[in-house]
Amino acid sequence: MSYFSSVPKISYEGTGSDNPLAFHHYDPNKQVLGKSMAEHLRLATCYWHTFVWPGSDVFGAGTFERPWQAAGEPMAKAREKADAAFDFFSRLGTPYYTFHDTDVAPEGDSLAEYKKNFAAMVDVLEKKQAETGVKLLWGTANVFSNPRYAAGAATNPQPEVFAYAATQVRHAMEATHRLGGANYVLWGGREGYDTLLNTDLKREREQLGRFFQMVIEHKHKIGFKGTILIEPKPQEPTKHQYDYDTATVYGFLKEFGLENEVKTNLEANHATLAGHSFHHEVATSIALGVFGSIDANRGDPQNGWDTDQFPNSVEELTLVTYEILKAGGFTTGGFNFDTKVRRQSNAPEDLFHGHIGAIDALALSLERAAKMIERDALADFKAKRYAGWDADFGKKILQGGFTLASLADEAMARDIHPKHVSGGQELLENIVNRYIYG
Amino acid sequence: MSYFSSVPKISYEGTGSDNPLAFHHYDPNKQVLGKSMAEHLRLATCYWHTFVWPGSDVFGAGTFERPWQAAGEPMAKAREKADAAFDFFSRLGTPYYTFHDTDVAPEGDSLAEYKKNFAAMVDVLEKKQAETGVKLLWGTANVFSNPRYAAGAATNPQPEVFAYAATQVRHAMEATHRLGGANYVLWGGREGYDTLLNTDLKREREQLGRFFQMVIEHKHKIGFKGTILIEPKPQEPTKHQYDYDTATVYGFLKEFGLENEVKTNLEANHATLAGHSFHHEVATSIALGVFGSIDANRGDPQNGWDTDQFPNSVEELTLVTYEILKAGGFTTGGFNFDTKVRRQSNAPEDLFHGHIGAIDALALSLERAAKMIERDALADFKAKRYAGWDADFGKKILQGGFTLASLADEAMARDIHPKHVSGGQELLENIVNRYIYG
Amino acid sequence: MSYFSSVPKISYEGTGSDNPLAFHHYDPNKQVLGKSMAEHLRLATCYWHTFVWPGSDVFGAGTFERPWQAAGEPMAKAREKADAAFDFFSRLGTPYYTFHDTDVAPEGDSLAEYKKNFAAMVDVLEKKQAETGVKLLWGTANVFSNPRYAAGAATNPQPEVFAYAATQVRHAMEATHRLGGANYVLWGGREGYDTLLNTDLKREREQLGRFFQMVIEHKHKIGFKGTILIEPKPQEPTKHQYDYDTATVYGFLKEFGLENEVKTNLEANHATLAGHSFHHEVATSIALGVFGSIDANRGDPQNGWDTDQFPNSVEELTLVTYEILKAGGFTTGGFNFDTKVRRQSNAPEDLFHGHIGAIDALALSLERAAKMIERDALADFKAKRYAGWDADFGKKILQGGFTLASLADEAMARDIHPKHVSGGQELLENIVNRYIYG
Amino acid sequence: MSYFSSVPKISYEGTGSDNPLAFHHYDPNKQVLGKSMAEHLRLATCYWHTFVWPGSDVFGAGTFERPWQAAGEPMAKAREKADAAFDFFSRLGTPYYTFHDTDVAPEGDSLAEYKKNFAAMVDVLEKKQAETGVKLLWGTANVFSNPRYAAGAATNPQPEVFAYAATQVRHAMEATHRLGGANYVLWGGREGYDTLLNTDLKREREQLGRFFQMVIEHKHKIGFKGTILIEPKPQEPTKHQYDYDTATVYGFLKEFGLENEVKTNLEANHATLAGHSFHHEVATSIALGVFGSIDANRGDPQNGWDTDQFPNSVEELTLVTYEILKAGGFTTGGFNFDTKVRRQSNAPEDLFHGHIGAIDALALSLERAAKMIERDALADFKAKRYAGWDADFGKKILQGGFTLASLADEAMARDIHPKHVSGGQELLENIVNRYIYG
Repeated sequence: MSYFSSVPKISYEGTGSDNPLAFHHYDPNKQVLGKSMAEHLRLATCYWHTFVWPGSDVFGAGTFERPWQAAGEPMAKAREKADAAFDFFSRLGTPYYTFHDTDVAPEGDSLAEYKKNFAAMVDVLEKKQAETGVKLLWGTANVFSNPRYAAGAATNPQPEVFAYAATQVRHAMEATHRLGGANYVLWGGREGYDTLLNTDLKREREQLGRFFQMVIEHKHKIGFKGTILIEPKPQEPTKHQYDYDTATVYGFLKEFGLENEVKTNLEANHATLAGHSFHHEVATSIALGVFGSIDANRGDPQNGWDTDQFPNSVEELTLVTYEILKAGGFTTGGFNFDTKVRRQSNAPEDLFHGHIGAIDALALSLERAAKMIERDALADFKAKRYAGWDADFGKKILQGGFTLASLADEAMARDIHPKHVSGGQELLENIVNRYIYG
Repeated sequence: MSYFSSVPKISYEGTGSDNPLAFHHYDPNKQVLGKSMAEHLRLATCYWHTFVWPGSDVFGAGTFERPWQAAGEPMAKAREKADAAFDFFSRLGTPYYTFHDTDVAPEGDSLAEYKKNFAAMVDVLEKKQAETGVKLLWGTANVFSNPRYAAGAATNPQPEVFAYAATQVRHAMEATHRLGGANYVLWGGREGYDTLLNTDLKREREQLGRFFQMVIEHKHKIGFKGTILIEPKPQEPTKHQYDYDTATVYGFLKEFGLENEVKTNLEANHATLAGHSFHHEVATSIALGVFGSIDANRGDPQNGWDTDQFPNSVEELTLVTYEILKAGGFTTGGFNFDTKVRRQSNAPEDLFHGHIGAIDALALSLERAAKMIERDALADFKAKRYAGWDADFGKKILQGGFTLASLADEAMARDIHPKHVSGGQELLENIVNRYIYG
Repeated sequence: MSYFSSVPKISYEGTGSDNPLAFHHYDPNKQVLGKSMAEHLRLATCYWHTFVWPGSDVFGAGTFERPWQAAGEPMAKAREKADAAFDFFSRLGTPYYTFHDTDVAPEGDSLAEYKKNFAAMVDVLEKKQAETGVKLLWGTANVFSNPRYAAGAATNPQPEVFAYAATQVRHAMEATHRLGGANYVLWGGREGYDTLLNTDLKREREQLGRFFQMVIEHKHKIGFKGTILIEPKPQEPTKHQYDYDTATVYGFLKEFGLENEVKTNLEANHATLAGHSFHHEVATSIALGVFGSIDANRGDPQNGWDTDQFPNSVEELTLVTYEILKAGGFTTGGFNFDTKVRRQSNAPEDLFHGHIGAIDALALSLERAAKMIERDALADFKAKRYAGWDADFGKKILQGGFTLASLADEAMARDIHPKHVSGGQELLENIVNRYIYG
Repeated sequence: MSYFSSVPKISYEGTGSDNPLAFHHYDPNKQVLGKSMAEHLRLATCYWHTFVWPGSDVFGAGTFERPWQAAGEPMAKAREKADAAFDFFSRLGTPYYTFHDTDVAPEGDSLAEYKKNFAAMVDVLEKKQAETGVKLLWGTANVFSNPRYAAGAATNPQPEVFAYAATQVRHAMEATHRLGGANYVLWGGREGYDTLLNTDLKREREQLGRFFQMVIEHKHKIGFKGTILIEPKPQEPTKHQYDYDTATVYGFLKEFGLENEVKTNLEANHATLAGHSFHHEVATSIALGVFGSIDANRGDPQNGWDTDQFPNSVEELTLVTYEILKAGGFTTGGFNFDTKVRRQSNAPEDLFHGHIGAIDALALSLERAAKMIERDALADFKAKRYAGWDADFGKKILQGGFTLASLADEAMARDIHPKHVSGGQELLENIVNRYIYG
């Protein structure tokens, strides 16, 4: 019997329903700005936190007791896990899923075993996808959990570790391609340092640059049409991770000539750990032309580690969704729930509650963001605020019509006395709240 | 009579002296690794915090009652301030100083007045420099304090404000050139945002890029041979500043083709506000080839704003100085004390205590860093740690000798089982402490 | 003509109105749980940020150019300020206001002048209150801005400074009493340290304890029936402030026997600077029996200083308002807007936008919190969760029916195997969101 | 053969030695201020991080492969662990050790098994202590790792969990008593909340208060003469822990009448996670009369979780040791290394390097702190700074000789004009650096 048998398929019941195991706002077929909610949000459930993590933390053992996590023959347990995962996806109704290679298949004791196990499980996944209609948003390789990666994968001081990681990434990319994945993600959890005393920053940077170039070359070689995504994170488990935030990743891509080949997979909690608002990272990524996809979660504002909680602030998500809609919406990306139920939430239903609340919060946000776009008071305000740059003087400056000296001469000649004009922040904050609360 | 008349010229008295108004470790002529301490450290005192700030904070009025800050005819007070400043530089013995245009001259009510006042004070400074032998490490323009800059200078929504700032920067650059300045600094205190709701990130980025290009063009036109420096800071006064940290600045420079024209002026407290160690920012800047100069101060580890305290951790400064020495030492840069005595430290002597302690801490650090270089255990450890990358397999990977597929094939064929080797962090930390404590 | 003449009296226009200078949710007379919105919220506007602060920050001069802040004869300007303040209160419609002694009257050059100026202005305020019907939520004394208080007021190393502060507090208390103030507030902005190197913690603690005792004695002597409030803050301007947070204040009150005499004035931004959620500080204060009043504002989650922004997160305020309602609502306290418009918001209207948005956010939150109380799913969940403690075994433990040994014996004898039961966090978060978003 | 056979017994070899596996500053018998270094520092090695933790983190599996952590019969492995631990203690030369009940004995599947296993291992420990001379600094019970404690131990919503924890604490206290432990520690790792939505703060506080009272009663009943210690920590694994910091613990103890029965076990990294310097927590604990013992480690200033690194900042430790010496030194407490080697440091020697560096740093700090005491410039400065409070006027204020009104009258009558006097922070910081660096 299914582990989730107490939970029926989740459906949209509207705001009138009191059923906690139903959507109250997310109606997948509801049209918003000419597309369905499902098409806009491209929701994905992750294997990693939801089916692999046992509810442990640094101070305590796992609390979950999921049957597929019990002791047993590894491949049999992997199949049991896949059954549970696709059962969950189907009951929940998220159209996409995401995985690491070692989430779905046992790692084995050699590269040969790894390859064999993974290939067998990719067959299973392919069949499951066909049966359920669930699609792959992205795949990735776990090159950070095994002790061999303690000092990094691509940035490891040993080239053999680089080679081991390359092998995993190659197979994970090819599996993603075969399973019709829309993207392939690179997360450098151990690509960073614990201490500068033993670290050669320049050398490790070059190793990482070459690794990414090899990935891009391989993508083209195998004809994978999806997007290659880098997921920025500032720290944890390392003291400092090389893909700290969007701006850092952008500089890295520029250095290695990859800025047109790679986009970012932004995680809310990684943004806040880096000292940025989630809104900031999304807006910056769009401004730099590298926006790709979202790991939708949130941190705890008072805790300094990755809590990966379910996103439920409609206030925060509305602004993020507004930016994404204004930029044209997702292409290959989507909202992936890279989220954990709390360690105390050990009931099967809790996994549903977490996802349902997050999905409803995204649906509420999407509707509010759509209203913001339809009658875009923020855009109007900005257009007026920067109007001078669309007029002759501003255009001439930007187009190189002045040198520093000639501009200074003109300013002096005109005896300009520019005065500050209110930025209207409180007014705009009120306007946003009216979009959200009517 | 001099405000500082109670304080004699500070000299080196060695560790045996109990005189708090003497150097116990900084002997300017002492040779370290073939250069004098003075040549290595290139110490500078700043006008800004030391002669302009009255000891006020957000919750209280100034406590300092420096005579040149009292009410009076602006140009007369500016001359009095210059007298006090050069008197202080001479008594303290720092060979360099640094200033903002409006630190040294009254801003006036128009660009014409600004130009006239500033030109008159540059004459004064030129004479003072000649009389005292004190040199200019760098000049800069204050384009953030006046209300006109409330919404930024180069990134202001009004092109007229851009033009006003350009005029100041032009004159500050030309003054720096005339006074023999070794560098010119750009700090974007208001180049950022308070809210994304009223901000066009892409547009403001382009304005800032054009501004920097104009600055570089002007540098070459006037024949200024010094270095153009950008000073990263993550926030304060704005919510988010565009030159957040070194990695962010690097990406920006790459985008606008300026990475060979501009270097960074790193401030310790700005590093820590950005979530980085000071060591990290210096090492990163060197690894990216953009290291320039240092604003030597420190923050309070428990306070979230720029406290600009005097640097006195020999433990921290030794590592920073080690990185700088290994990279060849300063070229045009130096250690500028961008530091404030505490608001409670209102005695004239306090200004000396702050600088003396910081200078001695740098001298101690320089000697320890030199020992680290002479017998470089860290370099030895790293050479061994990364040896695989200097051997054939590692080199072949980096030089493009493998594709992802061919590398994976080779890994599989060799059936590699790389094992993690200890990173030796505790050992290396002990070694560093032995350099510091003998 | 009034500075605020461009702004009509703000009225409730409902959600259908597009007028930004109107309330869309706050209808003062609307009944919620048997009281009007106005009675529940007890809204107050503050003199301090709204009429005293000129729009300056650490890096820049004031941007506001309010006429009453211009140069002039101090008492005349104080009267002009009072005219503007009460004009603003009346147009906005907040029933209460709050002040520091030196906000309303010039400090003068001696205690005699202070007393005279303040007395004259209290006459003015009394008249204004009578004319407008605006009431005083609380008064306080500014014993932190003048340079004499640089090292603290009650905790100053000089007893004369303690005496100076005592004089101000005496007069501010008596003025508050005379003006019918509902509370008197003590904020220890400089009661802390900048460095432990020069600080005697034990001694300063005793000074502060004695000061508070004198305040309580005076309260009873003059017959003031309002509440004495302490406002916790962890730091800024000092490195560490002695009234760090609610739990710290509680320990202090217990030590000096004041826990039944003093309550807390909690500020949202002070909570977040202390590493707590605003919700935490309110809930803790209620659990400890010391909840008094609220300084309603918010910080910036990414900035480490007191930004004092207008509160506008209905999500956050709903939980806070729920706790307050459950605890019986305010008695003498209220929501005071200890808030600043941003330095860029220099238009007279901006002061209204800030307050209107905050008031509407509180009204929205009040209605949502009332729904939470009416059908209190959280209370139901908790009752069930802790049911064991209301049954015999739990009661016996709490009432002292077991020793450690006898309880261990019983546990052993019963061979208990308690299992963790889900805490239901995700479910409860969804329930809260349904109260907020329907 | 011993796991540590590559490492000889660590001895003091002085600063001239280049042997990394020797002490260069810690000479246990060296006399400092009339006591040996060993008597001053009372060094302890912990079982928990050093023998129990496998080198795992949230993103990766254990890297250590210690033989006693391999699979095997639980009691046999526990004996093997004890062998390794006492072998390590003996080679390292730390005179004390510390443990949790479940560090030393398998938990078993019932309380009866727990009791039996633990009793058997206490026999083993007793024998080991006798053989090696290593003594027990403190014992404690792990009531946070087992899933049953996911929602707390004493503060759990189920009284049965309280009873389970009481049973463990009873046995751990009795074992500590039997083994001659100098202290017993209570750490409330799960005594806190993950969300306020499901938490009754008042109720949980009362449960915790009763638990502590039972512990104190039991201590007296069994005649344990050691000190009961609470270890404050602000968060992690919970969102908020009830024993947040020293000031919070003090308020709690006052509420339940335990302030004379319980002292604090302060951890450096817990202090910094709470937003305090380590120095602050030690000085505050001493000022409140609740200082007990130290968990000597440090956090990473840029990471927001408990990194538990080896303490190696002589600058920080000197100030802490100075405070402890001034307060009379440890009585029952000591410096316990609650420290982890980094996950990358997987060699047996790394465990020695970590401890050796920390011990030498403490020895250096002790000598410097002793110099600070011998010629106590800080005390002299403070005596002068607060002199007014030792004179008549100050004394009269503190002793209740004034009411607020009479003091104000006197201030007015004397027309006082107190002026701020410099706090000398920079001078004092330089003095401290001269103690440290000569």
